[in-house]
Amino acid sequence: MSTLQQAIARIQPLDEAAMAAARARQDTLTKPAGALGRLEAISIQLAGITRQPVPQLGIKTVLIMAADHGVAEDGVSAYPAEVTAQMVANFKAGGAAINVLARHVGATVRVLDMGVGQPTGNISRGPAMERARATQCIERGIAAAEEEVARGASLLATGDMGIGNTTPSSAIVAAFSRLPARQVTGRGTGVSDEQFERKVALVSRALEVNHPDPADALGVLAAVGGFEIAGIAGAILGAAAAGTPVVIDGFISGAGALIAAGLAPACVPYMFAAHRSVEVGHAVALNLLGLEPLLALDLRLGEGTGAALAMSLIEAAAKILAEMATFAEAGVSESDEQAQTPQLA
Amino acid sequence: MSTLQQAIARIQPLDEAAMAAARARQDTLTKPAGALGRLEAISIQLAGITRQPVPQLGIKTVLIMAADHGVAEDGVSAYPAEVTAQMVANFKAGGAAINVLARHVGATVRVLDMGVGQPTGNISRGPAMERARATQCIERGIAAAEEEVARGASLLATGDMGIGNTTPSSAIVAAFSRLPARQVTGRGTGVSDEQFERKVALVSRALEVNHPDPADALGVLAAVGGFEIAGIAGAILGAAAAGTPVVIDGFISGAGALIAAGLAPACVPYMFAAHRSVEVGHAVALNLLGLEPLLALDLRLGEGTGAALAMSLIEAAAKILAEMATFAEAGVSESDEQAQTPQLA
Repeated sequence: MSTLQQAIARIQPLDEAAMAAARARQDTLTKPAGALGRLEAISIQLAGITRQPVPQLGIKTVLIMAADHGVAEDGVSAYPAEVTAQMVANFKAGGAAINVLARHVGATVRVLDMGVGQPTGNISRGPAMERARATQCIERGIAAAEEEVARGASLLATGDMGIGNTTPSSAIVAAFSRLPARQVTGRGTGVSDEQFERKVALVSRALEVNHPDPADALGVLAAVGGFEIAGIAGAILGAAAAGTPVVIDGFISGAGALIAAGLAPACVPYMFAAHRSVEVGHAVALNLLGLEPLLALDLRLGEGTGAALAMSLIEAAAKILAEMATFAEAGVSESDEQAQTPQLA
Repeated sequence: MSTLQQAIARIQPLDEAAMAAARARQDTLTKPAGALGRLEAISIQLAGITRQPVPQLGIKTVLIMAADHGVAEDGVSAYPAEVTAQMVANFKAGGAAINVLARHVGATVRVLDMGVGQPTGNISRGPAMERARATQCIERGIAAAEEEVARGASLLATGDMGIGNTTPSSAIVAAFSRLPARQVTGRGTGVSDEQFERKVALVSRALEVNHPDPADALGVLAAVGGFEIAGIAGAILGAAAAGTPVVIDGFISGAGALIAAGLAPACVPYMFAAHRSVEVGHAVALNLLGLEPLLALDLRLGEGTGAALAMSLIEAAAKILAEMATFAEAGVSESDEQAQTPQLA
């Protein structure tokens, strides 16, 4: 079996016993049952992912996948392609938004050069890459996730950098949703009306030229994807294979998540959707994945910025389960429904 | 002038010059203009509140106001009234949800006993308290906020504990919105259908018996409020008077915010709404205040739990403005629109 096939084979269903134990513990904590809403649900999902009734999260790592795109030559971005490399340098110097937010939440940032300065094929004229290259890029993502878990990471997040990468992401979402290009194409970052129309036309052409088949996720990636999107898909598969929760950032990461889910549907329960981007295709992607975003801050930056903030919420959910006092410990009276035994007070 | 009148008189409009400077700085940071959405807007609001072009936040403090309610005797909660005091003990021991979340975000918790074990009048039969007592409780909240700011707090949050306090909160929201009781009354924490109908009837009766006048916010508070709701209103006024941002937690804090806004509309720009509670009246309150919540985690616990999590997002917004590299510093090319000078790359 290939590294990719091995990773897929290692992904297990969530641990139902750990989830049941976490659910039972939530109901003994000093709050009305369910009063912490999605924080409770997250803690139960974490129990299932980590196979621990009371999951403990430690090191948090954001994996930023960076690459360039042939379609950038057609002017889909307000920024020149050199900005991909410049922003990678900015990440390394610690001055980018993701650095600030990762420091804020106590996460480490690792940047992977998946093809900076060496763009994919232009998807409006032909495939982005060969299938073998797509597999290689996914496997680099798998390896990166596994390395971080081996170093102690217990919560991973995906991020992206790639001038022009909203165009392949729209094409991927169109391929899986079968929606027309216009319904899944946003304005990217700071584009004009004219550029927007050009982008819709390019996404349409990418679909016509490459006719990606949603039943063949690797084929969709090779046809209309990007090297960093492949890396993101791999990081998600690697996290799931290692039994580690993974936070999906925004639109580009959502496209990577669709590829991962297409290759291995069992990886979806390992995902947390960080936020709902203002990119219109993102809501479509989240809907296909069945994920509900944690934040709605109108972000549209990428880099893993939304994911870093969401990591802190996920950590908070784990701490609620681990650190809150129970009714018995605190000597707090339970409600009539909760009380199994006579009330304490 | 009374302490209350003095605090109201000290509340200034936000500093437009600091906001303009913050806005200008946001557009020089290494990201497309506006790509960090609400985080950018928050940083600009913080600049206006703190009167600093690059606001620096330090100590964060959650003020939990605790009190009991005469209407609890009518069975509006699934919990006995003793739970208010038991939960105050739990806060002091560090085992409650707010303790866990405050530790997570690095905030301090201070609990104020506004009337634990000494309930208000039963609002379904008469006023909650005299006007003089309402003023005293507000002034204790003002003093608490000012003390915390004097100790170095740069971001405050409100929280509540009081068995039965969703009932006065619904009555306050009904008074200001002029909506019928049923449209602003939720299920509180774990109540049955029968208890819910009783609660709607009690809120209706509280409005009929006390006929609160929304033009007289102090009167609304005295008629159908609570001691902790008064304390919350005071904490908000004190924060605004001290030029300090204040995070409004959920439904109960929202009711306190309506009282504060009624007394001094100028305090509203100092507020951040933490989250949208599942309590139906909360959305009505936020709408009256013109506030957009930061989180939608289906919380309904109170204590300041949503506010603690939101504090971390607000701090993140301040750090983005303070710590990100500019295009010039990082040597990153700007977009055509952003570039005032020839591009660097």
